[in-house]
Amino acid sequence: MKTRNLTLMTDLYELTMMQGYFKENNNETVVFDIFYRNNPCGSGYAIAAGLEQIIDYIQNLQFTYHDISYLRSLGIFDTDFLEYLRGFHFSGNLYAIPEGTVVFPNEPLIKIVAPIMEAQLIETAMLNIINHQSLIATKASRVVWAAEGDGIMEFGLRRAQGPDAGIYGARAAMIGGCIGTSNVLAGQMFDVPVKGTHAHSWIMSFPDELTAFRAYAKLYPTACILLVDTYDTLRTGVPHAIQVFQEMRDAGIPLTFYGIRLDSGDLAYLSKQARRMLDEAGFSDAVISASCDLDEYLIASLKDQGATITSWGVGTNMITSKDCPSFGGVYKLAAIWDDEKKEFIPKIKKSENSEKITNPGNKVIHRIYLKETGKIVGDLIALEDETFSESEDLMIFDPTYTWKKTLLAADTYTLREILVPVFQDGICVYQSPSVTEIQEYCRKELNTLWDETRRFINPHKVYVDLSAKLHTIKNELLGSI
Amino acid sequence: MKTRNLTLMTDLYELTMMQGYFKENNNETVVFDIFYRNNPCGSGYAIAAGLEQIIDYIQNLQFTYHDISYLRSLGIFDTDFLEYLRGFHFSGNLYAIPEGTVVFPNEPLIKIVAPIMEAQLIETAMLNIINHQSLIATKASRVVWAAEGDGIMEFGLRRAQGPDAGIYGARAAMIGGCIGTSNVLAGQMFDVPVKGTHAHSWIMSFPDELTAFRAYAKLYPTACILLVDTYDTLRTGVPHAIQVFQEMRDAGIPLTFYGIRLDSGDLAYLSKQARRMLDEAGFSDAVISASCDLDEYLIASLKDQGATITSWGVGTNMITSKDCPSFGGVYKLAAIWDDEKKEFIPKIKKSENSEKITNPGNKVIHRIYLKETGKIVGDLIALEDETFSESEDLMIFDPTYTWKKTLLAADTYTLREILVPVFQDGICVYQSPSVTEIQEYCRKELNTLWDETRRFINPHKVYVDLSAKLHTIKNELLGSI
Repeated sequence: MKTRNLTLMTDLYELTMMQGYFKENNNETVVFDIFYRNNPCGSGYAIAAGLEQIIDYIQNLQFTYHDISYLRSLGIFDTDFLEYLRGFHFSGNLYAIPEGTVVFPNEPLIKIVAPIMEAQLIETAMLNIINHQSLIATKASRVVWAAEGDGIMEFGLRRAQGPDAGIYGARAAMIGGCIGTSNVLAGQMFDVPVKGTHAHSWIMSFPDELTAFRAYAKLYPTACILLVDTYDTLRTGVPHAIQVFQEMRDAGIPLTFYGIRLDSGDLAYLSKQARRMLDEAGFSDAVISASCDLDEYLIASLKDQGATITSWGVGTNMITSKDCPSFGGVYKLAAIWDDEKKEFIPKIKKSENSEKITNPGNKVIHRIYLKETGKIVGDLIALEDETFSESEDLMIFDPTYTWKKTLLAADTYTLREILVPVFQDGICVYQSPSVTEIQEYCRKELNTLWDETRRFINPHKVYVDLSAKLHTIKNELLGSI
Repeated sequence: MKTRNLTLMTDLYELTMMQGYFKENNNETVVFDIFYRNNPCGSGYAIAAGLEQIIDYIQNLQFTYHDISYLRSLGIFDTDFLEYLRGFHFSGNLYAIPEGTVVFPNEPLIKIVAPIMEAQLIETAMLNIINHQSLIATKASRVVWAAEGDGIMEFGLRRAQGPDAGIYGARAAMIGGCIGTSNVLAGQMFDVPVKGTHAHSWIMSFPDELTAFRAYAKLYPTACILLVDTYDTLRTGVPHAIQVFQEMRDAGIPLTFYGIRLDSGDLAYLSKQARRMLDEAGFSDAVISASCDLDEYLIASLKDQGATITSWGVGTNMITSKDCPSFGGVYKLAAIWDDEKKEFIPKIKKSENSEKITNPGNKVIHRIYLKETGKIVGDLIALEDETFSESEDLMIFDPTYTWKKTLLAADTYTLREILVPVFQDGICVYQSPSVTEIQEYCRKELNTLWDETRRFINPHKVYVDLSAKLHTIKNELLGSI
């Protein structure tokens, strides 16, 4: 799967613009930023994800003979441009915030510094990949947060928006903190745990529920989670499960990981009744897992109601991010290299909608942490040539309400540049960590947020400020148009 | 892309159940149905899509050496079962409602008749594919309906949930009636029109908007749609576009397909003002296109407000089906072959939630049309061995409110069996039509619905009834559990 060539997976206008730049003899180096304007799902943060697949995509960029023939058949591309495409490869620089990092609106998740023809082509696929995985990683982190330490299993493949949404959605869900996925291909590709037991069809394929449970327990005694709702959860399902657990115990089979799964009905009520029945039968370490249209709100509510579920399978609502199924990453031109002045000229896109105005220039992001707590104070977007010292006071201010100022005293804060080099002159200089490593990094990243930023309702906003120099340039550009 | 091997793209439990059937020496032939319980997006219907990819998936089913090694590494599969997987292929029958057909809740979109081990493995991938494409085809058909004959272009690749969601989402959107997609790879793979012009970055890469427009018009004079909102739509964008159109006219360049694109702001107001400005300048045949977070409701509202837009680019909300991003297709065991009785024994899944009770047996679907109008009266699910004659009266009744009866007089209606054979004994016996052919078929299919079923608010329900025989069997099974 890693060698899939997605070169033509781009919007047609990227190619018509490329031909335009080609015909205009314009292949200046430019800066493009990928950023987003609002956190998904009403969240106070997002989680960056998808970089490994973007690297694969760029490394596999190549117009095949078949691709060139197809483009020729469209009747809008000239021979000289098609000849150029035949030798196309990415020769530019790419900087990215590593996967698993918590991120905020209006800061570049990825910065491309490349000839405009190359930078233009790769817009659509990069947005597609980062928008999808960042969305699902963010959603998953919320579901995991709601479960307060219980394990969340990703079970959404059958309702994902196509194969990749299932495969890379599982990857992103693992980054966001899930303990495993039902998706075997994702398990194979990303070396993450795969989970699952049986479906209603298993039960129905036997003459009766008890026989089906016995057969399953015989086969999988060390991971014996029985689905109890095929016919009647409390009247037959749980009693039959208890009977089988008792038979295992009587036969001297060690009950290591065993229990029941609820997949319908009132989970609060059913789990409490099932817990009582299991406990009374002497199976107090039996797990109760559940999987029924769950999301972060439902899990939090079930926790509040005292549901005795400790293992959660989450499908549709996580794999599609149902309440917010898109992540609004955009790709905007921020600067153009001036070969005479030997510097980047900042560019801005104006808009009647002030939140749609872009941040100009070749920028970096300094993440500011409070030394005492290790928590994030905010992010400071600055120009690449600005320097800051942790041993000096730092004044930050809201870019819209500039009178809202905060003074950080010298030596009370630390700074970390969060955009790292990924491609330099077309060569990949970055080694993606494994998904498990990204997951662990993400767990630590989430701990740099205050709980107030993680809560679901009205989360505390983390400020993303502009340096004074960048703020001035932005306002000058806005005034000059 | 057609030869992608997705064999491991299955839920782990399919494999653990398969091993269970293997160990139990149970590989009886079974009937599984894929059906859904509610139309997406509050629609009165859905459109079946994805069959071609399901065929590809089944034809490419093969556990590679690498796959077997991975499964062995999980430590839950025995050597004899892994050996069986090595030779695995699909040997069963598959029946499906052809792509582009309008469909309704509770009827089998796909019916599998196969040994249970095979039928179980393919559940997840088939659901993934059909759930995704049927969702987007349905959503697209709604957007197309709202546009009242204007062309809808699919522009969603960058916000789709991963590459496949963009690629196969574009395919489904074309089936639902879009006139083209921005996705070049989808254009190549499915031989459908690709569309697009330029982005804001094109404008910003030039010293000024007018120069950018002139450069674009010089390059693409025969498809010259200029994006007018980079700086100020009415103050600079539209006047500059008019100036360029005038220069083209003055230079004797034929203005064939030309106009403007609005991508932000109040589309009703801006389009009316732009129309007036274009008309006054003598460009009354200039197209006004728009693309800004559109969906079927917004397009209908803009139409109501007298917006002068006649070409629509629809992205995020269609490619993700934003208001309803999943299609609830499920896969349920309906019957098991009894080798002694030489017949299928119907099976049922009970549920406290009456809408979740399944329809048992080996079934077929007779679609009933009124001869006079060609419109659908309803669908009748019956057992495979039942026969019906159009020359006899037909009494149909609501399966829940059985006193709601309708008598169709002989010779006033026609019947059509809508499930067609796709695989027989593992061999594909079906040739998928091209996407363009499916689109045309779908257009005719939608015309078999009354407008009342197509409206967005409270659509008229098309009834899916059960034959008297099937209804009796279902009730007997419910009583016997």
